Amino acid sequence: MLIAEPLHIAIEELSKLPGIGKKTAQRLALHILKSSPENVENLINAVQDLKTKIHFCKRCFNISVEDLCRICQSSKRDSSIICVVEEASDVIAVEKSHEYTGLYHVLGGVLSPLSGISPDELKIKELMKRFENEEIKEIILALNPDTEGETTSLYLAKLLKPLGIKVTRIARGLPVGGDLEFADEATVGRAMLNRIDL
Amino acid sequence: MLIAEPLHIAIEELSKLPGIGKKTAQRLALHILKSSPENVENLINAVQDLKTKIHFCKRCFNISVEDLCRICQSSKRDSSIICVVEEASDVIAVEKSHEYTGLYHVLGGVLSPLSGISPDELKIKELMKRFENEEIKEIILALNPDTEGETTSLYLAKLLKPLGIKVTRIARGLPVGGDLEFADEATVGRAMLNRIDL
Repeated sequence: MLIAEPLHIAIEELSKLPGIGKKTAQRLALHILKSSPENVENLINAVQDLKTKIHFCKRCFNISVEDLCRICQSSKRDSSIICVVEEASDVIAVEKSHEYTGLYHVLGGVLSPLSGISPDELKIKELMKRFENEEIKEIILALNPDTEGETTSLYLAKLLKPLGIKVTRIARGLPVGGDLEFADEATVGRAMLNRIDL
Repeated sequence: MLIAEPLHIAIEELSKLPGIGKKTAQRLALHILKSSPENVENLINAVQDLKTKIHFCKRCFNISVEDLCRICQSSKRDSSIICVVEEASDVIAVEKSHEYTGLYHVLGGVLSPLSGISPDELKIKELMKRFENEEIKEIILALNPDTEGETTSLYLAKLLKPLGIKVTRIARGLPVGGDLEFADEATVGRAMLNRIDL
């Protein structure tokens, strides 16, 4: 074999990570090989702690060190609004905007008949159950603006509307700092339709 | 804090890897968080084995599981030729070409006064020592065609020439499958100068 066995295995394992091809995996493996033992130990411990120390919030399925995540625990958050997102990374994205003070619900994916993801695979039942114990006035659907995100939004809206709750969806339009000239037609079209009074 | 502590640490550690920014590190960490315990264990073991099972060849400083690497151990290799490369990854690149059957010597870097890399930092003394025990007829310098690679090549050539050994350098020219029109001037210039008889 061209490459020493442990290096070969490391390249295989690293290239299973998203967005990491064989070439990048080789560069990472050779970098790790040249790193100090302490640095490698820090990396290994950090990865291990991810799995052992982090759980999912029992209420909203956001990542959390405790049973309930910091957002669900906080008394400063408006518990009458729930923002529904696809993944925990989307919670981070919304939090970074500093424009939202309500709670979250992480679905863990979106409906996708092609990939075999049905409503049962997502935390939809768990979302519906929250209405039994929580006083919820508004659900904000913040799923990605693609086909699967739209389908899931429509599915959820159909489920939620009969409960008499306000269901909204985050706005579509031109990204801040974006350029009208370079925006795609669908985005410009949406931005025109959803125009607001000034 | 916006992000749970273990996730924050994992993102910090992952973003220390070459070519991995904060955003990619976050994606990798969240992927690891969602992976099965077995997959994460396989990844951790592979990284750990890299550091514990792989050493550097005592003769050529290529990566190796044993004291001598497979290439140095092989009786099929021509031990009268040594190809000098910068890193172990370059050994892999040359081996993949299937055009070379001699031995290697991995310098572990190139001369770079700006980064403070002097000849003492590289395995140059070790290369010179090989002449005491090995019957070497040719040294092929296969360093990268950049300023630092060229400087190191010239430095090594000056050291090696007095020993009466043939010193060669891998050819510069148009890459196979490349396009004359899109090649930079320096490459086309070199390709013209180094033209060969047909």
